[in-house]
Amino acid sequence: MNPTSYLEANKDRFISELLDLLRIPSVSADPAFSNDVLRAADYLAQKLRDAGADNVEICPTAGYPIIYGEKIIDSASPTVLVYGHYDVQPADPYELWHSPPFEPVIKENKIYARGACDDKGQLYMHIKAFELMMQQNQLPCNLKFMLEGEEEIGSNNLDIFVQQNKARLQADVIVISDTGIIANDVPSITSGLRGMSYVEVEVTGPNRDLHSGLYGGAVANPINVLCQMIASLHDENNHITIPGFYDNVQELTAEERAEMAKAPFNVEDYKSALQLGDVHGEAGYSTMERNSIRPTLDVNGIWGGYTGEGAKTVIASKAFAKISMRLVPNQTSEEITEKFKKHFTAIAPKSVTVQVKPHHGGEPVVTPTNSIAYQAASRAFEQTFGKKPIPVRSGGSIPIVAMFKSELGIDTVLMGFGLDSDAIHSPNEHYGIFNFLKGIETIPYFYKFYAEMSKSK
Amino acid sequence: MNPTSYLEANKDRFISELLDLLRIPSVSADPAFSNDVLRAADYLAQKLRDAGADNVEICPTAGYPIIYGEKIIDSASPTVLVYGHYDVQPADPYELWHSPPFEPVIKENKIYARGACDDKGQLYMHIKAFELMMQQNQLPCNLKFMLEGEEEIGSNNLDIFVQQNKARLQADVIVISDTGIIANDVPSITSGLRGMSYVEVEVTGPNRDLHSGLYGGAVANPINVLCQMIASLHDENNHITIPGFYDNVQELTAEERAEMAKAPFNVEDYKSALQLGDVHGEAGYSTMERNSIRPTLDVNGIWGGYTGEGAKTVIASKAFAKISMRLVPNQTSEEITEKFKKHFTAIAPKSVTVQVKPHHGGEPVVTPTNSIAYQAASRAFEQTFGKKPIPVRSGGSIPIVAMFKSELGIDTVLMGFGLDSDAIHSPNEHYGIFNFLKGIETIPYFYKFYAEMSKSK
Repeated sequence: MNPTSYLEANKDRFISELLDLLRIPSVSADPAFSNDVLRAADYLAQKLRDAGADNVEICPTAGYPIIYGEKIIDSASPTVLVYGHYDVQPADPYELWHSPPFEPVIKENKIYARGACDDKGQLYMHIKAFELMMQQNQLPCNLKFMLEGEEEIGSNNLDIFVQQNKARLQADVIVISDTGIIANDVPSITSGLRGMSYVEVEVTGPNRDLHSGLYGGAVANPINVLCQMIASLHDENNHITIPGFYDNVQELTAEERAEMAKAPFNVEDYKSALQLGDVHGEAGYSTMERNSIRPTLDVNGIWGGYTGEGAKTVIASKAFAKISMRLVPNQTSEEITEKFKKHFTAIAPKSVTVQVKPHHGGEPVVTPTNSIAYQAASRAFEQTFGKKPIPVRSGGSIPIVAMFKSELGIDTVLMGFGLDSDAIHSPNEHYGIFNFLKGIETIPYFYKFYAEMSKSK
Repeated sequence: MNPTSYLEANKDRFISELLDLLRIPSVSADPAFSNDVLRAADYLAQKLRDAGADNVEICPTAGYPIIYGEKIIDSASPTVLVYGHYDVQPADPYELWHSPPFEPVIKENKIYARGACDDKGQLYMHIKAFELMMQQNQLPCNLKFMLEGEEEIGSNNLDIFVQQNKARLQADVIVISDTGIIANDVPSITSGLRGMSYVEVEVTGPNRDLHSGLYGGAVANPINVLCQMIASLHDENNHITIPGFYDNVQELTAEERAEMAKAPFNVEDYKSALQLGDVHGEAGYSTMERNSIRPTLDVNGIWGGYTGEGAKTVIASKAFAKISMRLVPNQTSEEITEKFKKHFTAIAPKSVTVQVKPHHGGEPVVTPTNSIAYQAASRAFEQTFGKKPIPVRSGGSIPIVAMFKSELGIDTVLMGFGLDSDAIHSPNEHYGIFNFLKGIETIPYFYKFYAEMSKSK
């Protein structure tokens, strides 16, 4: 087979179709965009039909719909289930974008837009690779698509959908492109993901905002108290102080850590790319270990008191923070959320009251690298990149991977083509045209090798 | 003399005129309200003319204008300079107001509106007391008014105006009603005020917002760092840790502290009024000492990262806080701002950069209680309340009192009629009609006694 000819002939259309998708501001976290999220679903359902999918359906859920579509060639061939998400992160702070987040522009062979990489650009590679295989009569596997619109807010309705559609979703492997490679000349495949526990905390002091002159010094200031509580969650070595937090953490062997250390990484490049005075993290671990195999605690947002123009001398009644913890095998989000809640409540001084509200969670996973599916993916990358991809543990979270395993009993291959520098979740998110086209080129080889290796099994 | 008859006959009009003034949202901190601030100035200038003031002038400054007006009866009589401010604090958070902040309502004999007490209600007492004395031909002193529109943002242009108008502002005493009494049956006169140093800090980590999965644990999170830095500004006894912060603090004698302790105060009432689980503050000092004779450090506002709906897994590039320190004799705002800036920059880890931007400051003052003016005020309160007022050190700041002393060499009498429970700077600010009318009744007695005591000197 040779996907490149069809790719060459159609790449401009592929790109312009992706730009149309990126123009739809499908921000799932903000109800103001709900119609746009639905428009994105309609757009993708139509593109699936155009590519040749059967039984395409926009399945309603309690939240945003899940798009299903399939192409069954014969019961003897293996079945691949492709997952992707058509919702995107909020784009704010808008003022930091060089061009509007939902008016995609191409600069230096990169597509700039919210969702360009995460995950619209990556999921659309699969639809175009599917079209390519259909047009070339080279689809060697049964193929099923499941595209959701709530990944960025915790996939709250996906597990219900999966439980209710186990037969329809039966497959031999799940393929997801929502991760990255080390560099365009250093291909890699993600072999593990961190889980997540996400909470929102509220600290209440006095029952109303107070004048800081008349009351300052005599009542607990909830902002100061919140800062003290947050500060106490790390010790001087940046270990997390929540009792039992590390109890179930799977420590890597010296061999595994040595293997990880072989991945190309230059701390000076890392620092200068982010203009950091210094890196920072848990004592005893390298930067690459800190953001992949170690659990973390980060404040993702904080607010309280007067944040407007000028100066207001007020003691706020309440202070708030959003806090997320990234988890590693064998921590569980339920366990960690419970331990956080218990500890955070316990350390609150008598002078305030505290509320901890759990948001979504997700479980960490390690995907097997000895499976046929992983090997097929590895060969496909080698075919198109000319190099064997390195297995890499990623720091991100795709909670549904663990859920698919537990609910459907199916392993996942994380066949991502993004780069850490794509600024996903940040202003000026982008996706390389090289990466977009390379994905469309690589995916058909995965199906080819996977079908062959499955049969010869 | 007997002001009550005229007061009885005109109080309804006095109140409705104040309500008209309160309907003007003269928020000086927010440029969006600049026309309203100017409208408030016009309104008051006209009311001064109506009351009988001569040479009323709306004097332009680099910011909001200062209203001057006078009534000179003869050069032999003592001259009183009345100061007040017609700007108000921002009203947010709006959602916590039971009625709109700029649509005053009267409930249970209290006027609810932003500025009802601070300072529109209190300054308007002086204009109506002036009208009363004019109508009854009982003005025994020369009278000068100076009303500014930038008190809530630091009176940035007042000192320039004072320097340029020293002759016009010459007086024997300055009277300000911008403070309170202990209770309506426990009259008091403020004999001291805290100063203030107000800064805004900015902590920058990475040069852009980052995905907390891909980077979490490996880069300094500016929100976590800001929390750690703020937490470190107090030790376990709630002493402020800034080097040299207490160097110049004037400690009160045991006698003075014993005298203070005589003022009626019930900590249980205090806690239940604010629904506090416990009071909180510097070890070794009582609640009343903590909020009056001790310096403090409070975060007045904090913000950073994602604060919208739902969950966003981001590491923010920047985090911000507004921090104010209340000062006591003999600290100076310049000294403390410098010490804060030096310390806060010094404790910043290498992984972030820090900016400290000073806002306005003000100096602490202690007003003499043995002066003719204070004695005259004390007798006036005793006349109308039936009790001798207690001298009280207040925790609030009126920076211009120290400036008047240094620029004009004139002492101030702080003849305030508000209550701590008036919720100034908070949602649902209000001012008692009792207090408004009692002020208008008391002020003429002050002029009477002050004129008599000055002559018999």
